[in-house]
Amino acid sequence: MSEQRSDLKYWVAFGRIPRIGRARVSLLEKHFGRLENAWTASAGELRAAGLDAGSISAFLATRDKVSPEGELEGLERLGIRALTWHDEAYPPRLKEIYDLPPVLYVRGQLTAADEWAVAVVGTRRGTAYGRQVAEELAGALARSSVSVVSGLARGIDSIAHRATLAAGGRTIAVLANGLDLVYPPEHARLAQEIMERGALISDYPLGTQPRSEYFPRRNRIMSGISLGVLVVEGDVRSGALITARQALEQNREVFAVPGSIYAPACRGTNRLIQEGEAKLVRQVEDILAELNLTMATYQMEMKELVPADETESLLLKHLSSEPIHIDEVRRECGLPIAAVSSALAMLELKGMVRQVGRMNYVRVREARASYGT
Amino acid sequence: MSEQRSDLKYWVAFGRIPRIGRARVSLLEKHFGRLENAWTASAGELRAAGLDAGSISAFLATRDKVSPEGELEGLERLGIRALTWHDEAYPPRLKEIYDLPPVLYVRGQLTAADEWAVAVVGTRRGTAYGRQVAEELAGALARSSVSVVSGLARGIDSIAHRATLAAGGRTIAVLANGLDLVYPPEHARLAQEIMERGALISDYPLGTQPRSEYFPRRNRIMSGISLGVLVVEGDVRSGALITARQALEQNREVFAVPGSIYAPACRGTNRLIQEGEAKLVRQVEDILAELNLTMATYQMEMKELVPADETESLLLKHLSSEPIHIDEVRRECGLPIAAVSSALAMLELKGMVRQVGRMNYVRVREARASYGT
Repeated sequence: MSEQRSDLKYWVAFGRIPRIGRARVSLLEKHFGRLENAWTASAGELRAAGLDAGSISAFLATRDKVSPEGELEGLERLGIRALTWHDEAYPPRLKEIYDLPPVLYVRGQLTAADEWAVAVVGTRRGTAYGRQVAEELAGALARSSVSVVSGLARGIDSIAHRATLAAGGRTIAVLANGLDLVYPPEHARLAQEIMERGALISDYPLGTQPRSEYFPRRNRIMSGISLGVLVVEGDVRSGALITARQALEQNREVFAVPGSIYAPACRGTNRLIQEGEAKLVRQVEDILAELNLTMATYQMEMKELVPADETESLLLKHLSSEPIHIDEVRRECGLPIAAVSSALAMLELKGMVRQVGRMNYVRVREARASYGT
Repeated sequence: MSEQRSDLKYWVAFGRIPRIGRARVSLLEKHFGRLENAWTASAGELRAAGLDAGSISAFLATRDKVSPEGELEGLERLGIRALTWHDEAYPPRLKEIYDLPPVLYVRGQLTAADEWAVAVVGTRRGTAYGRQVAEELAGALARSSVSVVSGLARGIDSIAHRATLAAGGRTIAVLANGLDLVYPPEHARLAQEIMERGALISDYPLGTQPRSEYFPRRNRIMSGISLGVLVVEGDVRSGALITARQALEQNREVFAVPGSIYAPACRGTNRLIQEGEAKLVRQVEDILAELNLTMATYQMEMKELVPADETESLLLKHLSSEPIHIDEVRRECGLPIAAVSSALAMLELKGMVRQVGRMNYVRVREARASYGT
């Protein structure tokens, strides 16, 4: 068992402690190295680590009621994997967000393909129009090999998951409760299918009941693991709109579907567009083009995408979905400009990178080995 | 009869000559002063004025068939007024556009209130949604004392005219034919009502039959006399979209109503919004706010808006719907900054001007004497 693996149970155990979240786990890790040492520390040691008095007493009052070993066994019994933010399988995009969860629970599989994900969200009370749009756009995203992320809720969410599955695509449901529960209960079978053809994920420990105040935290994970968020329908104060605002704070693209100015369900989406916060979407290509995903399917189907030599491999490591200027690539790789320039041209021909704007490059989706969660 | 008045018949007569439009009328006026002198000039004199050979022969071949006096009589018989671009009653905003017509024909009345006009355009084949939107927004504009401009066409155009009349507002129909004709014929009664409660206008001479190739020229007048253009519905290649593009070239605001991504009639409007060419409109306030027309009705109803003294009068002359910085106002008026500043504050209190952004001012609609066309 690896060092990291043996420490995992304490990460999971700390998830049971009130008040211990991103900031304090960071603090403890910095001081103690392994969380096991934090878990077994005295009040004095915790104080020395910089933990505040309130958190220390909350911890000391709860610690004895939590069994790190038992937590891990509970997860294993249900086939749920816990990923710490050090885990290679932890969604790379989620690492970029401000309040990333220390531990993410996964039921099913997260794969490399899920790096190219778009969240599809909307009201629980969608109109016939919204339901049709959700179905068609989620299906079209799936056919373009985009993983569709949503929240398993009634209405637009469940339609997006189902359309993705129907199109043979991958879909991820982010839950505002423990992964041993399915909410709403009538989506139990849907959850099962998602688990088999994608993943259910959550940062809440087992047994956590869904509560509406958990939704914003859940929503930030939906947008956090995605390149962008598509809001299909939602009134001005809907959860979908909150997700859109969070996505903007996380620097994610936000897309919205226009609709009738008389439909309450379109009030929020129309307003997002009106205020320039969301890009208007008429068809799936509008999303794919904006996220540099166009032609990705074609390229993934047509050839194995493997770098030809070491220069190409090195360059690819420094490219992501964020545009980077050729000079910066050169600096980071420490290679001569001529070598960088010709290798980038080759990679572009192979469809593995794409030039966006003047001498700025992004990586196009590649077929990498599965993360194997 | 004024000098200008006696020259009018020649302006009207030149409207009958092929190839003589804005540029060549300008040329002739510059050389001959009065157009009467141009009308009676020899080929040599016309050549000396800089007129090209083709236009000279077109003119000489047509001149004898046109009776300037008869043209004027024909107009007077129908109660149609011809306005040259020197006329005070010529719509001031139309003077700003690149290819302003030398002569504009008016049947009915243009008043000072028509300076605050918005064109409402859309497809002839509107959906139930588009028809409802056109009716409600045109009515709401009318109730805000905005003159509604449209093209008398079937569909959205006629709905906009009718809703304006029903709301007791002023409406202007810009025709792509002579004002002695009504097209389509079933709008004869509507045209009559518009004439009584607004105006029919055109830059085509009497007897000109409507032709589809005249529509773009007509459309540029619709947007030219308006502060902005509201596109209610239209497919990507519709006339409404052409009007929108022309309006942008004329520096007019363009507004569009969002709609279903499945409705062909909403394809053009959604695209205008998507490409940032049009502002999305959810309600009439979105238009009024953007054009600095908010509260105008209230102010017009609540008091006679008259400047209190010479300073205020002078300032008002230098303010328009285009924001202007206080320093520039001061320079143009040649008044001390303190006087300008306090007078602007008073005018703002009276609701006659409005500060937009830092020390930039626009004029709010005022109740001026009718142009009396």
